[in-house]
Amino acid sequence: MHYKVGILGATGTVGQWFVKMLEGHPWFKVKNLAASEKRVGKKYGEEVNWLISQDIPKYARDLEMVPLDPKYFDVDIIFSALPAEVAREVEPIFAKNGFVVASNASAFRMEEDVPLVIPEVNADHLKLIEVQKSVRGWDGFIVTNPNCTTIILVLSLKPLMDFGIKNVRVASMQALSGAGYPGVASLSIFDNIIPFIKNEEEKVESETLKILGKFDGNRIDFAKIKVSASCHRVLVLDGHTEAVWVTFERDVSVEDAIEAFESLKPLQLPTSPEKVIIVRREIDRPQPRLDRDAGKGMSIVVGRVRKSLEKELKYIVLGHNVVRGAAGASILNAELMVKEGYID
Amino acid sequence: MHYKVGILGATGTVGQWFVKMLEGHPWFKVKNLAASEKRVGKKYGEEVNWLISQDIPKYARDLEMVPLDPKYFDVDIIFSALPAEVAREVEPIFAKNGFVVASNASAFRMEEDVPLVIPEVNADHLKLIEVQKSVRGWDGFIVTNPNCTTIILVLSLKPLMDFGIKNVRVASMQALSGAGYPGVASLSIFDNIIPFIKNEEEKVESETLKILGKFDGNRIDFAKIKVSASCHRVLVLDGHTEAVWVTFERDVSVEDAIEAFESLKPLQLPTSPEKVIIVRREIDRPQPRLDRDAGKGMSIVVGRVRKSLEKELKYIVLGHNVVRGAAGASILNAELMVKEGYID
Amino acid sequence: MHYKVGILGATGTVGQWFVKMLEGHPWFKVKNLAASEKRVGKKYGEEVNWLISQDIPKYARDLEMVPLDPKYFDVDIIFSALPAEVAREVEPIFAKNGFVVASNASAFRMEEDVPLVIPEVNADHLKLIEVQKSVRGWDGFIVTNPNCTTIILVLSLKPLMDFGIKNVRVASMQALSGAGYPGVASLSIFDNIIPFIKNEEEKVESETLKILGKFDGNRIDFAKIKVSASCHRVLVLDGHTEAVWVTFERDVSVEDAIEAFESLKPLQLPTSPEKVIIVRREIDRPQPRLDRDAGKGMSIVVGRVRKSLEKELKYIVLGHNVVRGAAGASILNAELMVKEGYID
Amino acid sequence: MHYKVGILGATGTVGQWFVKMLEGHPWFKVKNLAASEKRVGKKYGEEVNWLISQDIPKYARDLEMVPLDPKYFDVDIIFSALPAEVAREVEPIFAKNGFVVASNASAFRMEEDVPLVIPEVNADHLKLIEVQKSVRGWDGFIVTNPNCTTIILVLSLKPLMDFGIKNVRVASMQALSGAGYPGVASLSIFDNIIPFIKNEEEKVESETLKILGKFDGNRIDFAKIKVSASCHRVLVLDGHTEAVWVTFERDVSVEDAIEAFESLKPLQLPTSPEKVIIVRREIDRPQPRLDRDAGKGMSIVVGRVRKSLEKELKYIVLGHNVVRGAAGASILNAELMVKEGYID
Repeated sequence: MHYKVGILGATGTVGQWFVKMLEGHPWFKVKNLAASEKRVGKKYGEEVNWLISQDIPKYARDLEMVPLDPKYFDVDIIFSALPAEVAREVEPIFAKNGFVVASNASAFRMEEDVPLVIPEVNADHLKLIEVQKSVRGWDGFIVTNPNCTTIILVLSLKPLMDFGIKNVRVASMQALSGAGYPGVASLSIFDNIIPFIKNEEEKVESETLKILGKFDGNRIDFAKIKVSASCHRVLVLDGHTEAVWVTFERDVSVEDAIEAFESLKPLQLPTSPEKVIIVRREIDRPQPRLDRDAGKGMSIVVGRVRKSLEKELKYIVLGHNVVRGAAGASILNAELMVKEGYID
Repeated sequence: MHYKVGILGATGTVGQWFVKMLEGHPWFKVKNLAASEKRVGKKYGEEVNWLISQDIPKYARDLEMVPLDPKYFDVDIIFSALPAEVAREVEPIFAKNGFVVASNASAFRMEEDVPLVIPEVNADHLKLIEVQKSVRGWDGFIVTNPNCTTIILVLSLKPLMDFGIKNVRVASMQALSGAGYPGVASLSIFDNIIPFIKNEEEKVESETLKILGKFDGNRIDFAKIKVSASCHRVLVLDGHTEAVWVTFERDVSVEDAIEAFESLKPLQLPTSPEKVIIVRREIDRPQPRLDRDAGKGMSIVVGRVRKSLEKELKYIVLGHNVVRGAAGASILNAELMVKEGYID
Repeated sequence: MHYKVGILGATGTVGQWFVKMLEGHPWFKVKNLAASEKRVGKKYGEEVNWLISQDIPKYARDLEMVPLDPKYFDVDIIFSALPAEVAREVEPIFAKNGFVVASNASAFRMEEDVPLVIPEVNADHLKLIEVQKSVRGWDGFIVTNPNCTTIILVLSLKPLMDFGIKNVRVASMQALSGAGYPGVASLSIFDNIIPFIKNEEEKVESETLKILGKFDGNRIDFAKIKVSASCHRVLVLDGHTEAVWVTFERDVSVEDAIEAFESLKPLQLPTSPEKVIIVRREIDRPQPRLDRDAGKGMSIVVGRVRKSLEKELKYIVLGHNVVRGAAGASILNAELMVKEGYID
Repeated sequence: MHYKVGILGATGTVGQWFVKMLEGHPWFKVKNLAASEKRVGKKYGEEVNWLISQDIPKYARDLEMVPLDPKYFDVDIIFSALPAEVAREVEPIFAKNGFVVASNASAFRMEEDVPLVIPEVNADHLKLIEVQKSVRGWDGFIVTNPNCTTIILVLSLKPLMDFGIKNVRVASMQALSGAGYPGVASLSIFDNIIPFIKNEEEKVESETLKILGKFDGNRIDFAKIKVSASCHRVLVLDGHTEAVWVTFERDVSVEDAIEAFESLKPLQLPTSPEKVIIVRREIDRPQPRLDRDAGKGMSIVVGRVRKSLEKELKYIVLGHNVVRGAAGASILNAELMVKEGYID
């Protein structure tokens, strides 16, 4: 079972993590790396401003970069780490030309016929693929994963859904790597917090409802909960921390919530972590530097589950924003599509 | 109008800010500095590990430190920057001996007969002083100011009270200086967030109700609102940032809230800022490094006031945790007591 | 004694400090602010991404920005915070049109007929102005101040020159603000050191020799010392720290060096600090956060003066890179020119 | 080939790295962990304030901690991460009782009969073991590794020795983890540099001469070079960066130096890196966050080799202070002793 894959936007922060996470992948082999025009024809290793500790994987160093054009790609799957505005132009061209596009970009997430998937949460939303292909008349298709902050939040909400969630408030403390490169100027963020991230709150508040919604055979019936987010950039390298308040229809005990968190099952995919949610009992966890690499960055870590106002619990959830929240999310989606037979 | 004052716990972080803020004060003149036993008899300038940019004020350098014992004090007002457990022992001794104690310590804040005051919010709670003196039979008395996170929050809640607050959720991102010295180890907090501060959430959730309560002639009738706090330490030197959700009895518009914030009047005291609440209209303010020194650290800064869930607003509020949130809070209380005639 | 002044490059980091330092200046009044074309015609307060704690000075907020063209300027002195490549084009046009240009840019620093001045070190190099005007046939002229790292180093070397310096080695640990805005990406510098700053070592090694050289009536006879620099960017907001080794012709005692440092006299100019060099005796000073604001940022602070190899001393020197090292340096030069009669 | 080992000072920063690096070690199996009295009898996993990303190795979690007393140890080798003053008392007791002590403590490094070893530099100094055993009449012995800053420096100097080194100047920028836990207060080091580390310069200046000296059959004949160090603490988690100037007896080209660096051979020991010195050609490397984990933290990384003053080169060298500079150094020494037959 081997598939050839390509990466769009390979030199950015998320692109670099695709390159790194796909090194030695049991199913996927990177064949093509695409970047902006000025880099085309140059070797990846010479062009990329590599920001991840440890060297550029050897396989990628001498790959010559190609344009964002299907005719240069000889692959089965396209991973897209493109900025939204570029993705909006480019991804449909690949899909139309028969490629499977596993995209981390926000451009198509909220389109009616595009699956927005976290494998452990709503794998069945992949059924939208058929709708999409038929509506658009494409040979290929686009499957997206949510925004990083949303993924981490929703993974923690999923096991609580059975208790009847009414609404959710979340304050995020987001890492620098979430803003890409060059991203946030050091002069802006040092000894500081920036209490605003463009479009972030809107994404968390809308994507969550789609992911937690139900596929009714034709479309997604959005979840009937409400989410209010306040998003902040802080001086942390990797790992988004979120303080969450969940109001339920009824009283839910801390113990029941913890049991639910721990019972969320991983799928048996190459990039799946051993545990999807790790619940820490220490009084002061999770912490980004200590917990972001749990499950090689694919687990999320929950802690400080405690009573809040009436019929409400509060807790902290943390995840690696570039691994579980971006590159790893797309890879897991692609693995799921392979397993479910969506890719020949 | 001149009063002699002393400082208990003068070498700690809050103690240092007392020393700094009282330099050149128009009403108060520092006569005695007290510290832990091992420092007694030594000069302040030689013992203190001065951590504030700019030098130790000249007046304080050669002051010889005295023990935490009334007999060494020849002053009218005692400012206390003691840790709670020491304050619990020491402050009553001073009060019993006729001193006015303006305390930043948490030890007595929630006692029934002890005023917990923010001058712009509940100046009339000073009337508890008479109750306290009569109940305890003391010649002096203790007046406290709230916890730093609470002060910043409550200053922003006060102008909203008329709209009918039902409940409040707050996620704090608190500065290093709030933990005192040596406080948080750099190895613990660097590239990290610690999502736990001992007793902090409890303080915010309980003190708020007392401050916003009404004095009924005998005691404080606590405010009938509910508060749920999630407190986090982040890598910022000074300035606590708080993401706040306020649920009202009825719909409140963003414009009405802003108008209310801006109409909170400063008192005419030496340490009062020109504006109590500064509302910033920029999309990404307040930010701790840029806004903590507003009004010489005595203003709080509100921004991003926006609609949330039904009958709910959310906003960011920021204040200087050691100035408005600690030393400046006690000084303002003392100034208020002078003005109101509580100190001969 | 009042002069009208203009600022070129007013929206950058150094430009902002010009705006701030000139607020309420006793001799200079800012009339014009110039910035890049896209900002022309807009109000300064609406265009600048103000990064200095505390607000934009009121006088500057509503100033309409003008192009980098002399005909828009009605001033006596031009302060230039332009990037080198722009300065190379623009500054001569101003000088040709009769303006006095006090420039922080590197473009002309090493030109034979351009004074490179630190008032306390080589005020007499201003005599090059006559040479410059006669050689170039300009009505105005350009006077430059050195690179920030160089200024701080040379101020500490000047008092040691009488002992006979042979050579100097310096390792700098430079602040983020030295790179301007957006400057260094947070992802690049967080939890990191960048041991390279473009052209910086070359500037330190060459400018030092010119400043410490002698004006022979016609040109500068460069100092016969050698300098070897290693420059590094570190995670500090403001303040460059430098570890210096000075090898002398003969043995120099620590006491003699300290005495020399402390005897460097300030000029009596509005922006002069009370002490040019502050020598700290504590074992662990100077430190950027605690010492960069000494003398309102115009003093440099020396510490840890100690014996090194044979006939060698080592010490730490620190200064505020944007105040003493840039905006304040140009302002001090302009003040000196006024005092010395170079400006009508 | 299996040896049982114990760790003294197992809960500190270096102790934790011993625990981590010895997990799954092919030759060594951890049997006993010792810590200060108050922790004795408790489980390691419950007592340690684990600060390394990823969890406490499973093997260590339930180990019951024992006192610093030989009678509780059933091992062949003792790794010591004790503070110097405790090591001075305790290590001789273990050596006297027949244990091989591989110590990271500074207590005995400069003793005449104690080997101070970096395997790739002076493996033959182990011959001092016989001298030590005979002089002291011990059944066991103590072998030490140098201070972290020294190890990184000396590994880079070793290949240059053949060119004839006269003297060395080094400015270090040292990581937080080098100060242990709690170590440096965040309030002290944030937005700051501390240009002083107690005893550090003395260690670098003296230990270097011993390590680079020659064993003459009886004692070490110290190297005839001179070293002058200036040591600074900066805001970096792990990884010491050093700016080095080396003055030679003769002209040495950059190319020859690089060739020498790259020709330093690793020993074939389990913890040996593939390359001892990695030379980076990029203009801005090495950088601590990107390079400290090279060779799993056991390589050092050199960059920016360039001409300086006459007969002088300068360069940057970087290494992981806790891995190559402490725990890994002791482990490598123990592996060398096993290979050389010093341990039965």
